[in-house]
Amino acid sequence: MSVCVIGAGLSGLAAAYALREGGLDFVCLEKSPGVGGIWRRSAAGEPGPAYRALHLNSARELTCFEAFPMDEEHGMYPSHRDMAVYLREFAEWAGLLPHIEFGTEAVSVRQGADGIWTVVSRGADGAESVRTFDQVVVAAGHHDVALLPNPLPAGAESFTGRLLHSMDYVDGAEFAGRRVVVVGLGASAVDIAADVSRHAERTVLSVRNGQHVVPKQLFGVSVDAIAVAPWFTEKSLPEQQEFIEEALRVARGPLTDYGLPEPPYRIFQSPVTVSDEILPRIRQGAVRPRPGIESLSGSTVRFTDGSTEEADAIVFCTGFGWRMPFLAEDHPAGGRGPVRLYQRMVDPDRPGLFFLGLIRPVGSITRLVEAQARWVVRLAKGESVLPAADVMHKEVDDFLAGIERRYGLSAGASVHVDVTPYQRRLAEL
Amino acid sequence: MSVCVIGAGLSGLAAAYALREGGLDFVCLEKSPGVGGIWRRSAAGEPGPAYRALHLNSARELTCFEAFPMDEEHGMYPSHRDMAVYLREFAEWAGLLPHIEFGTEAVSVRQGADGIWTVVSRGADGAESVRTFDQVVVAAGHHDVALLPNPLPAGAESFTGRLLHSMDYVDGAEFAGRRVVVVGLGASAVDIAADVSRHAERTVLSVRNGQHVVPKQLFGVSVDAIAVAPWFTEKSLPEQQEFIEEALRVARGPLTDYGLPEPPYRIFQSPVTVSDEILPRIRQGAVRPRPGIESLSGSTVRFTDGSTEEADAIVFCTGFGWRMPFLAEDHPAGGRGPVRLYQRMVDPDRPGLFFLGLIRPVGSITRLVEAQARWVVRLAKGESVLPAADVMHKEVDDFLAGIERRYGLSAGASVHVDVTPYQRRLAEL
Repeated sequence: MSVCVIGAGLSGLAAAYALREGGLDFVCLEKSPGVGGIWRRSAAGEPGPAYRALHLNSARELTCFEAFPMDEEHGMYPSHRDMAVYLREFAEWAGLLPHIEFGTEAVSVRQGADGIWTVVSRGADGAESVRTFDQVVVAAGHHDVALLPNPLPAGAESFTGRLLHSMDYVDGAEFAGRRVVVVGLGASAVDIAADVSRHAERTVLSVRNGQHVVPKQLFGVSVDAIAVAPWFTEKSLPEQQEFIEEALRVARGPLTDYGLPEPPYRIFQSPVTVSDEILPRIRQGAVRPRPGIESLSGSTVRFTDGSTEEADAIVFCTGFGWRMPFLAEDHPAGGRGPVRLYQRMVDPDRPGLFFLGLIRPVGSITRLVEAQARWVVRLAKGESVLPAADVMHKEVDDFLAGIERRYGLSAGASVHVDVTPYQRRLAEL
Repeated sequence: MSVCVIGAGLSGLAAAYALREGGLDFVCLEKSPGVGGIWRRSAAGEPGPAYRALHLNSARELTCFEAFPMDEEHGMYPSHRDMAVYLREFAEWAGLLPHIEFGTEAVSVRQGADGIWTVVSRGADGAESVRTFDQVVVAAGHHDVALLPNPLPAGAESFTGRLLHSMDYVDGAEFAGRRVVVVGLGASAVDIAADVSRHAERTVLSVRNGQHVVPKQLFGVSVDAIAVAPWFTEKSLPEQQEFIEEALRVARGPLTDYGLPEPPYRIFQSPVTVSDEILPRIRQGAVRPRPGIESLSGSTVRFTDGSTEEADAIVFCTGFGWRMPFLAEDHPAGGRGPVRLYQRMVDPDRPGLFFLGLIRPVGSITRLVEAQARWVVRLAKGESVLPAADVMHKEVDDFLAGIERRYGLSAGASVHVDVTPYQRRLAEL
């Protein structure tokens, strides 16, 4: 009985830890030279989603592994560098390093007629190796591909400034004295706009669709901790909405007061961006909200309200996608369309292939990935059994129908999970 | 009938504007080459209380002059540079520049037996001139002298790093890669700690005494606007306290959760620091709170809880004082002890000498200074009359007794005023 884990980021480490705790034999393939996934890249000087100013948006206690508390010294929201150090320390503490093959890329993952998985990988020396496993755990991340607006705004080819994606954004100091338009209202957009505004001559935040902007804490308690607190989860959805909306009225007031569009849906029914910085920076006049971009021409950005700004750079913080080139081209988790996985983890037609961390909760992913990893171990040991393929397909259909109602259907939307119900479900399985 | 105004900062400009509106003849002496006082210095590259990252803590609408609205474009809390530009624009718009003698310093201000004031000033060319006036309005500011702890911590002479006062702090970039201890919990301390923390290797905030830290807004409304709103001022003090404390419970939670000391008094009974930045920076682990400094030794800072930090610099944000060398050495507004001025403006023993802006409200000073200036004009025109000296002394005694109960008695504490009652009183006079 042997398992192959692909990736040694946060999810891969969670898988490796659970497998080791479960007494299962495994190999972990990691294409980079170290553990930590997206958390290690920026500290290592490699491009990735973590800009220099990035801190966690989820509380330390909920983001670290349950078995290995993170040093309090880092505050409630450690920086991405602290997180990278922590993941390295975890891997050492848990004795996982001997199981990880660094510089090793998965090339192909295919299931034979006997149900056995053949994994082809390419090592640091360029040599390919072919091995078979009973199970494969894919923990390859989903922040690899920069998603740009498609199509780009009219006239983009004539824009004389720099067009970049948040993936290529490192530090606001690069934009000292420049006029910058940041596009989006997600976590990267608001962090980057605040960061840029400390250096740039002028910072504009272009927001097409309203989204709930929520402080990192209410009542001095991290909002992700509130979201999973028993006193909160035992409330009904309308009660939860009323409670949070009332707190937001006190802590923040209406978003339209800040020049941002009102979200089209109530809280918990549309995406949420957690930020302590963007609203104060808007109030300081340091970040100026504008609606969506209508067109570009030379150095001029025209917005949908007819207003214009001169810009030296546009930073598209329009999200991330992923590709898993080791899977079959049309694989339902490959990032080219809605993900179709039973419990967001299992390919219904190819049991034995598990996806870890291919989820986007509001808040920390860690407890969910730990629960996913434990379920994989139970499945691998036969302590839990998968239902028939048609039952799994039905679960996927129902889940995606719900997603479509709330967010529309896309690869990104299809990996959204609600923390508490998902965590409960995983524990039951 | 002629008036001499000393200073062309915010208060001096308010005085000049009111005098001109009142049809009174006046001369304004300004020692620097331009208007704006502390707001212009930093933009002009001169040392002063305004560091590069400084934004107003009071709302634009309440900080600009009533007659000359400030451009909305600057946001709710414009930067000190925007404020400097605004004050220059105001002086031009109001036609005040021809009345101002730039580069001219007041050397001596003395009252003769006939009640007439003799003002000696030194012009840009070094030549002294002697003129007489019916009234003198001193609007010379009170952020001129850096107040350091006295005595400095034990062992300060052995400290190998840099010791500086917030007055000499310009930009966090100076401290890139350094270990910095910021001392204090006032407006400068929290701003500077947040700013430093974006550059320094390590930022510690040393806080001896608890103080209320309040976000810039509650309910999306600037807290200084709440403080003067009729729906708020009509509440009793206990109701106001309960209302704000309840909002702070939602928006912030207990200060001890952040590692800061709990303030010894309830809100509105001890000093308040308004900041949107410091609590999030503490939560991010970017600013680390410590208690007061016990002693220094080499590069080591020892705190009163016995903990230590290595530091390359200590920034004392321990406040400002003032001197008015043109007044008699022992003048009761000279900054060497509690200020003794009737209604915080009038020397009871030398009527005709008025002090403008020698007050420290929580929130914007502008509406108060405008009201002070209008009262000066009424007095100068005989539309209002001062009471007898003993009545004025009694008012001062009563006021200082109240200050002593709330804050203890010092020059700085003696200029604290409560916005709404003070504004009402000035309007009545």
